[in-house]
Order: sequence, then C-alpha cells, then structure tokens
Amino acid sequence: MKPDSDNSTLIDRQSYLDDVAWDERGLVPVIAQDADSGAVLMLAWMNRAALAATLDSDCATYWSRSRGRLWRKGETSGHVQHVVDIRLDCDNDAVLLRVTQAGGIACHTGRASCFYQALETAGDERNWVASDPVLKAPDEIYG
Amino acid sequence: MKPDSDNSTLIDRQSYLDDVAWDERGLVPVIAQDADSGAVLMLAWMNRAALAATLDSDCATYWSRSRGRLWRKGETSGHVQHVVDIRLDCDNDAVLLRVTQAGGIACHTGRASCFYQALETAGDERNWVASDPVLKAPDEIYG
Repeated sequence: MKPDSDNSTLIDRQSYLDDVAWDERGLVPVIAQDADSGAVLMLAWMNRAALAATLDSDCATYWSRSRGRLWRKGETSGHVQHVVDIRLDCDNDAVLLRVTQAGGIACHTGRASCFYQALETAGDERNWVASDPVLKAPDEIYG
Repeated sequence: MKPDSDNSTLIDRQSYLDDVAWDERGLVPVIAQDADSGAVLMLAWMNRAALAATLDSDCATYWSRSRGRLWRKGETSGHVQHVVDIRLDCDNDAVLLRVTQAGGIACHTGRASCFYQALETAGDERNWVASDPVLKAPDEIYG
C-alpha cells in the first residue's frame, strides 16, 4: 500500500471494510460482549470510519446516530472498551466485538450491561422490569 | 383483558410491545445468546408480531427481511431456539434473547454461531477468516 496523506482514501482501500454489508445508511450493528464474563454489554452502530478507528486504537469506537459523529466509547465516562477480537457474521451484516470493559460498567445508567430490563409476566400482563443493580450513580460517572 | 377474535388487536394492546423503540421499518435488532455457554449465536430482527409470537411459543421467531415474512428459527433445520429470558436495552431499541439452541447449531453454515469470521492481521493486510468448525454439513441439515 502506498503512503497517502488522505486518510479517507486509505480507509476506502481496506478490503476488510468492503467485505462488510453496510446498510443503506452506511452502518452495521455491533454487539459488544465482555471477553471475561461473556455478558452481552450493549448494541451500537459503526460506519466505515468507526470500524477503522476501532482497529487503529484497539478501543471500541462507534457511530452515534443521535449525535451524528464518531463516539469513542468511554470518552466522557472513562468506561472504554479494549478490543480483544472482532468477528463478522455469516451474512456480513453484523459485527461482534469481544472487549475488556473498563470499570466493569458499559451502560450510561451505571450498570454493567445496557440489557438490564427483563421481560416479566404477572397474570395477563407482561412488563419490562429493571433487574440489574446500578454499580455507580450516573452523577458520579459524568460529574 | 377481554377475549377478542382479532389477534392483531390483541397484539396492539400489549404495552410491553409499545415500550420497544421500533425503527422506521417497525423492526428491532435482536441478539440471540446461548444461555449455557454465553456464546453470541446470531443477530436477527423482530417486528411486533415476531416478538409476540416468540412469547406465545417460547421459541425465537424473527422477521426475515429477505423473505418478508415471519421466520420461526429452526422451522426447516430443526435448530429451534427455546427462550430462557428476554431483555431490552437502556434505549429500548435492542433486544437480547438468552436461548437454549437445539442441536448446538445456530448458523445455516452448520456452525455453532453465525459469528465465525475473525478479523486477522497479516502484515499490512486485515482479512476476515473463517475460524470455527462446521459441526454439520448444510446438505445434511437442509436435505
């Protein structure tokens, strides 16, 4: 590969990026899994630049759909995700990151995992019930 | 809840379905995780009817985007997913199913997990490399 001052051109040349079946928005859903416990921590999204940045930094970097920009996980909270390995599924349209989760907290609510609402049945009713403990108050995390 | 012959009306009345932040297509991404091993098996999609059908049957039922219809996982292969529990994330826009995977095979390629392509680096190149064994040939699975 020739040196090139235009980073976006460099990204575009990477065939591993071309292999991903990006959706119509140029995004792919990404599952982050704790490499130690096996817990599923969160689901977020990446575009080409986010996946390239994740590989360059070894820290999970997502595309924030709400903020419309790259979002290095933990940039504010310190709860970065160090990447252990990266996998692509059989349809090339979903990514799995196994990570070491700094602070043991992935969720902005201060919980280990974002998937803390369990579907519970009571009589005829079903409800999502917060079922995992808050390990650190969001006020403490975000100041 | 009053009896009602119109099943779609019944589905619409379920507030746990209203709590999900369905996307502009009426879908939500769903992660299936093996309840025993913790392995992430696949990522698929559900609409309201798929989530309701999953709860009614205790077997994972997805919305097939390619076929445009409900797809009871394992309906052809026999590799059904018995649901152990269902969780929703902090933004209400992703679902996690913990399942018991019949046959120990989730992938149509005959592998345990759909996430069998690992990103490997060799010199300047990065490539997705099939890294998990085929447990059963697709010909045997699908006849």
